[in-house]
This record gives sequence, structure tokens and C-alpha cells, in this order.
Amino acid sequence: MTFSKAELWQRFVRYYTAFPNLGLTLDISRVNFPEGYFKSMEPRMQAAYAAMRDLEAGAIANPDENRMVGHYWLRNPSLAPSHAIRHQIEGTLAEIKSFVAKVHDGTIRGAQGTFQELLLIGIGGSALGPQFVAHALGHPDRDKMRLHFFDNTDPDGMDKVLASLRGKLGRTLTLVVSKSGGTKETRNGMLEAKFAYESAGLAFEKHAVAITSIGSELDKLATGAAWTARFPMWDWVGGRTSETSAVGLLPAALQGIDIDELLRGARCCDEQTRSTVTAMNPAAQLALMWFYIGKGRGEKDMVILPYKDRLELLSKYLQQLIMESLGKEKDLHGHIVNQGIAVYGNKGSTDQHAYVQQLRDGVANFFVTFIQVLKDRDGRSVAVEEGVTSGDYLNGFYLGTRQALYENGRESISIAIDRVSPFSIGVLIALFERAVGFYASLISVNAYHQPGVEAGKKAAGNMISLQCAILKRLGTNEGRRFSVADLANAIGNEDLESVFKVCQHLVATRPMVEGDNLATPDKATVWLRR
Amino acid sequence: MTFSKAELWQRFVRYYTAFPNLGLTLDISRVNFPEGYFKSMEPRMQAAYAAMRDLEAGAIANPDENRMVGHYWLRNPSLAPSHAIRHQIEGTLAEIKSFVAKVHDGTIRGAQGTFQELLLIGIGGSALGPQFVAHALGHPDRDKMRLHFFDNTDPDGMDKVLASLRGKLGRTLTLVVSKSGGTKETRNGMLEAKFAYESAGLAFEKHAVAITSIGSELDKLATGAAWTARFPMWDWVGGRTSETSAVGLLPAALQGIDIDELLRGARCCDEQTRSTVTAMNPAAQLALMWFYIGKGRGEKDMVILPYKDRLELLSKYLQQLIMESLGKEKDLHGHIVNQGIAVYGNKGSTDQHAYVQQLRDGVANFFVTFIQVLKDRDGRSVAVEEGVTSGDYLNGFYLGTRQALYENGRESISIAIDRVSPFSIGVLIALFERAVGFYASLISVNAYHQPGVEAGKKAAGNMISLQCAILKRLGTNEGRRFSVADLANAIGNEDLESVFKVCQHLVATRPMVEGDNLATPDKATVWLRR
Repeated sequence: MTFSKAELWQRFVRYYTAFPNLGLTLDISRVNFPEGYFKSMEPRMQAAYAAMRDLEAGAIANPDENRMVGHYWLRNPSLAPSHAIRHQIEGTLAEIKSFVAKVHDGTIRGAQGTFQELLLIGIGGSALGPQFVAHALGHPDRDKMRLHFFDNTDPDGMDKVLASLRGKLGRTLTLVVSKSGGTKETRNGMLEAKFAYESAGLAFEKHAVAITSIGSELDKLATGAAWTARFPMWDWVGGRTSETSAVGLLPAALQGIDIDELLRGARCCDEQTRSTVTAMNPAAQLALMWFYIGKGRGEKDMVILPYKDRLELLSKYLQQLIMESLGKEKDLHGHIVNQGIAVYGNKGSTDQHAYVQQLRDGVANFFVTFIQVLKDRDGRSVAVEEGVTSGDYLNGFYLGTRQALYENGRESISIAIDRVSPFSIGVLIALFERAVGFYASLISVNAYHQPGVEAGKKAAGNMISLQCAILKRLGTNEGRRFSVADLANAIGNEDLESVFKVCQHLVATRPMVEGDNLATPDKATVWLRR
Repeated sequence: MTFSKAELWQRFVRYYTAFPNLGLTLDISRVNFPEGYFKSMEPRMQAAYAAMRDLEAGAIANPDENRMVGHYWLRNPSLAPSHAIRHQIEGTLAEIKSFVAKVHDGTIRGAQGTFQELLLIGIGGSALGPQFVAHALGHPDRDKMRLHFFDNTDPDGMDKVLASLRGKLGRTLTLVVSKSGGTKETRNGMLEAKFAYESAGLAFEKHAVAITSIGSELDKLATGAAWTARFPMWDWVGGRTSETSAVGLLPAALQGIDIDELLRGARCCDEQTRSTVTAMNPAAQLALMWFYIGKGRGEKDMVILPYKDRLELLSKYLQQLIMESLGKEKDLHGHIVNQGIAVYGNKGSTDQHAYVQQLRDGVANFFVTFIQVLKDRDGRSVAVEEGVTSGDYLNGFYLGTRQALYENGRESISIAIDRVSPFSIGVLIALFERAVGFYASLISVNAYHQPGVEAGKKAAGNMISLQCAILKRLGTNEGRRFSVADLANAIGNEDLESVFKVCQHLVATRPMVEGDNLATPDKATVWLRR
């Protein structure tokens, strides 16, 4: 089903909504929902509004973990369900501002001078928001600190970051961010960073700040070693919705970004998306489009195409927010539903020269969310043709791609913002947080837990235990050659494949561990050099 | 269907293949194809080998564009179908090395000294390979030049890059890369860069190098203005397979990467993947897995999960290579097939804290390709627990995630390489190029054209024309207020929606263009200020 140009104009007039208070417009006219769709969904949507109202009032919206869900309070503490929580939020914001002012004016400084570099050690929800915001709002000319990240447990990746900080660690502030305070990747990154500072003759704790839950392993460590500062996380803020908590605000403020504007953008969007009139609620409209397009079962992938370099990391940020929130095995009634929506994307018009070929001509397993920024740049533009600028081309490619896709029956949603600013980034973050919440209600899943992540962590822990058992067995039998089956048998583990793969990694990384015939796992032998 | 641990070990022993000459292993044991699958596919696979043999011998393997497909010759010029082509390849490689040596020793230099910064202006196939390779193989301590990219026509994005080059343009070499020499984004980037050099009082042409087809618009410009150097592209090399042409080799060599090793890796992999014994051909095995998992119709998305920070851009590189090659409307017989495979991913274990929740528990619409790197880092590792390193955790997370996914019926392929090196990057590039070629044969599509890209370009061109018509009409009626319908009527364009969206962008970017009621498109008016 496609519409004629005249019908499209009518649909556009009807389904294009401007939210001037947010500097945002939403255009859902290129999704082919029929007349009556909104009406048919209204009862479910009203239930979603009610669930959101309860959540904001402090209900246990994350039942599996028995937790409240409070990221909306962060930008409007007066909504918090208790005075204690309100004071925690307001107090932490004040502490962040005070700390940042002292870092910027040199009251708090590194061993070798004022802090100029910022190393954030965190993963998942503790890194994706800060990375997105730093990239979207940073500017080489204006940033007060340069940001670097350890967002993995890859030794070589950390070495590469440390090489770029060589000679500068004495002016590098390190933020260690882990809500639980027990995330292994972050713990490892912290230990690697500590080693680097100490190797450079610097006291790590004088350059270290923790953001974590009070009483966590990390909190105890930071307290015991008298780190420079500690900021709290709370169990009612999820990692993927933590950008407006200390996790996002502290690095942004250190970089020099106006966090009050970021919070104001999120707060204004929250207010707008509290409307129970669907036509006036952009988050509700988004959720309803996702539901329509994917038939409430995630049947189509969501391709995120912002036409702006600064929004390049938005797709990665939304990939976590949406997939970790919605990708659930069971619904709230315990039925197996295997829900979710796959999200990917990068930026336009760049991607037009990459995978847009498939979007237009290939498998029709997706819909596009275009994000347009009306303002091109600060200052004037040179003409690339008479009267035409680079920015006109960017806009032309957006319009052209949207049209070329539609002609082939591919649906799209278009969001436009006036400009990329702390306010508009706050708006976008809050808009998608709310849309995810509504959609989760529509499909009855808990958007605020992540049980599947635990399984991988546990399995990884088992692999570390397996490695320890293997090393121990090899160590007590120096020089003895074990086949994979022998070794598995000796340590009482029937997972021969994992035994082999762990041995393979040990041979590659431990000078004392040797192996033979590793190309043929059933003939392979491994031993510890005498 | 899942297998028991004992069966899995048997499958692993059987379907794990080491290619020691490539430093690569491939493990397809966690794809649940039945006994007999390879045999049933053998006739089709043999046809694919034959097609590839013809392609390498110079057949018109891209029939729609009537072109040969010659990227395999680039790493083994003796295979080229004519002496002329062989000499072009060898001559260009020699010219690259000679040019790079002169840049490095300062014989060729910028107005303010030896070249230390490299700005590559290109998009799609002219940027993704160089970005992937620069990120995978670069090192802050060793790079001879620092790379920067204009890979879009976003004015603000270019301003941000130029801000990081402020004061350094006199030591910045700019490569303008466009095979056709007519890509608008690249042309715009070139003009913006030229303006920046000239604003800094520098002669652009003394700092500019072109990589383009001989006789192209860009080639003529570079010749006419006596740019520092020009390097050729050929119509028998596609953009997405151009990493081993001047497009990839020149920036890599300038950065200080050993391009002979990159070429040797690709050449060795090409030799291995010429084997017509499927059990010895990793590219054929990959193509057959893609075919099995997606039923030859791309029914599952391909998630690329390299457990290594340096391979973070691999998924973006493969996204283009795979989706632009396979995402086709028609097969070689002209039937509508809407083929392709959606590709996304980032890196492990980072993504375990993002979307792996959905992979394990949610919509089962994907398979994973894990990429493991056996070597952890240069030098020794600190212990993060007794006898355990950060790298052991990285390996543990890979094994744990693979297992957690399999337990829930999610299939995966595992590729391992010894280390990240110019050789292994050459291997990976060639491996996926060949797998894409084989898979295209299995599903009978032309992997070497991109007709859908043209539609978007043409539509964008129409938008630029529309904008010019609007500006002209407004200009000849200064002060007169046009409704969208009036304006559309006046310029004879019935696409009111595009007229509105172009006006909206003009109001946001042109001080002289004013608008009213833009929140309600049917009531909006636009005019040129008197």
C-alpha cells in the first residue's frame, strides 16, 4: 500500500506534529497505518499512560527486581516519591557542580597540574550515554577536558588509550563508573589504569573518582583508599536510563557541557510526553508506530538514520536502550514471548553509500527513523554551487532517500530538531526513554530488568574457574602432556570444547603453556613447560 | 534443535577448521545444519566456484554495468587478464610507495613543514575501508600521520574536524577520494576544505592529492590545478572492494602501516579460498552457513561481534560490503527477489552490556559471527585476580556469551585470528569479499552493482533543483507571502510535502528567508525579506 502525492500531502498535514516547546517535530505520515488505527489502540494506550503515571509516582515498575524506576525524577526532583529521594537528587547535582567548578579552577588538580584529560572507565549503560553526549556536544575549541574511554576488558584496547595519555596521566582524572560496583570489565579497567598511574610514579587515588551505589564493592574500595571523590547511583535508576544521573552529568559537566540545559530538555520532554492525548504525545506516537510496523512482535528492524555527524552514536545508544529494555523472553504474565526490536544505524547521507542499497531494493525487514537537524552549522556557509550549500545537499539527501524508500514500499518516521544542543539532546533522550516505556506497556514486558545479561556473566565466570582449574592441573604435572579429553577428565568437566578453547587462549598468552596439534582438537595436547 | 555436550564436541572436532597459513580458524559447529547439508549444496557450490574462476579470469562478472571485477588481481597482479592491467596495478603500487617515502622524509611537504596530519575526504567505499584499517592498525606511538575524515556533507561535522586541525593545515595532506569523481558529498567536502586552506592563507593544491578514475571530473580538476599527486581508480574495482587499491593502500601507507603485509594477507586468503574442496575453503563455508541460516533469503540478521577494540569498525565495514553487494531487488534472471542480509554489531564484551540481552532472550531473528583474537596485547599483563588477566576475562566473556546464546537456540559462527596485524586484516577483508561473491552465486544476484543507490542520488538532485526553483520564485517576489500550495503551483511541482520541507530548511538556514505558521504545513507561509 502506498499513497498518491495528493493523499500523502493530506496525511502529512494530518500526521505531522510540531512541538515548538521542544524544538521538535514528528512526522509519521510515511507509516501506512489505516484510518482508525489510533482509535483502535486508544484503550491500550490509556492503560500505558496509567502504568507510566504509577511508575512516576513510585510504583514497583520493575517487579522482578522489586524496584522503583525513577529516571524521570532526576530532571524534576519535585516528582520524587519521598523527600529523602528528592534531597539525594538535588544534593548530588549540587555536589557535581561544586566538584566540577573546583576541577575547572584548579582547586582540585592532578599531581602534574590542572586536569585536562578525562578517562571514563565503564561499560554498557555506564559508557554509552556519556559517549553519545560527549560526541554530540563536544567541540575541540571549547571543551574543558578531553574524554577517553575504557569500555571493555580488552588489554590492547586499554594500551591504545593509555598510549594516547602518555606523559599526561598526572593531569588525567579517572572516573570509574559501575552501578553495582562489581562489573568485572570495569574492575579490570580500573586495575589496569591504577597500574599505569603507579608505573608513572603517580598515586592513583588522587586522580580517581567513583560513581557507584553506596556500599558497593567499588564504593568500599574508593572510601578505603580515600579517592578524590565519590558520587552515588541508586537502585531506582537503570544503567541504560542513567544519562541524567551522575553517570551522565558528571562527565558532561567536566567536559564543559551545560547540564542544566540537558536536564531542562529532558524535563520539558517528560512534561509533553505525560499528555494522555495521543495526538499531543510524541513518545506515544512513536510507540504506536513501532507496534503497528512490527505487529507488536518486533517483526521489523529499526534503522536509525540521523542526518548529522554529531548524532552518529545515537543508534548505538538507542540500540542498548531499546533492545535491552524490550528484548525479553517472558511477558509480565510469565508467558514466553521472545520480544524486542532490533536496532541499528549510523548516519546519513554516509549510509546512503553503504547499506541503503539493501534498504531500498533488498529484504523488506525494517523501517527507518530519520532524524533531521534544521540548523546546518554555526556561521556562514560557502556555496558549493550557485546558491547551494553542503547543508542543502545534506537536507536533499535526507528528502531524497526518504522518498526513494517510500516509492519501494519502505516505511519511515521522521523526527526533526532545530539544532544539536544540550537542550535538544535532553529532549531526544527523554523522548526515546518514554517511548520505550509505553511500548513495553503495549506488549506487557518489564522494560527495566535484564535477566539475560546475567546468564552470559555467569557463563563467563565459569570459564574463568575452568581456566584456573586447568592451570592448576597443568602446574601440578609440569611437562606432562594432556589431551583435551584427559584434561577435561582430570578436572571433572565434560565441556571438552570449552576446555580446548581455554587451552588455546592460554597457549597464545602464557609463555609457559605449550601446545601441539591445536589445529585438530581431538589430537591436541597441552602442557606446562618444565 | 540443540545438541548435547558430547555431540557438540563431536561436531566441533568435525566442523572446526584451522588454516595455519592464514593464522585463522573457523568454527561452524554451532550452526545446526543437518548431516548431509554440505553434500546437498555441493552442485551449487561447484557452480559458485566456476563463476568465481571466470570472474578472476576477467569475465564480465558485473553484467548490468558491463564490467570486469578485478579486486583479486590487486593482491596478485600476475592474475590480471591483460599485461596492461598488470602494469597499472604494479605501477600504481610503486608510485604509492615512492610518494609515501617522499612524504615521510619531507621531500614532499606542506607550506608549514612535513605532513603530520592526513585528511581523507571520501564516502562509502572510499572511507569505510580506510577507517576500519586505520582504527585496527593504528597506534598513537607509532603512526607517522594522524588520520581525519570528511565522510559526509554535514557542514557542522566538517567544522568539527577542521577545528581539530586549526593551526595545522599547513602540515595537513588532504586526499580526495572518489572513484567516479562526481560524488556530491565528496565534492562538497573538497570545496569546504579548499576554503579552509585558503582562509588560512594556504594554497590548497599544494596539500591535495586525488584518487579517482582517469578522466573523471575530479581528475580533470586535479590535473588543471596541478595538485600534488594523483592516483588512479579503475572501473573494474568497486568502491566496497577497494581497500587493496590506492583507496586503501595510500592512506594506510601514509599512516605507516605495512601495506605489503596487508596485500600478502589478502593474497594468501585468496589462494586458500580458491580451493574447490569446500572443507578447505573458509569463504565457501561462511557462504553456506549464511545460506543455511537465512534459508537463502536473508531471513536472519548477521550480528558481527569481534572481541577486540581494534575490530570495532569491522561490522560497519562488513555492513557495506555485505548489504550493498547482496541487497538486490532482482536476481540475475530478472526475477524480483528482494535479497540481502542485514548486518550490524559492534564489539564484545561491551555489547554484552547493551543488546545481548535481546539476542539471548528476545526475537530470534539473527545469528552471531564471533571474531576472537588469540593474542591479548604486546607485553605482559597485570593480574586482576590471582593468575587471571583482563584478556582472560575477554576470552571468558566470548566463550560465556557463545554458550549462553546456544543454550537458548541462537546459532553462531566463530572465527579466530592469531593477532590483529596488517596480514590478518588483509585475510579478513579477502575472506568476506570471497564469501560475499560465493553467496551471491548461491542466490544468483549481481554482487557488484548498486542500482538502488542511484535512485536516492537522483531524488536528492531533484530536491536541490526544487530548492533553486523555490529560491528563484521567492526572489522575484520579494516580500510576497506564499503558502505551500501557492509556491508548489507557481513552480509547477505537485509534491507539496517536499516543497514544505525544503522551505523549512531554508527558513532555518537563510537569514533572508522567513516563514510563519510552520507548525501547521497547510497554513504555513514563506517569503523573502524585502
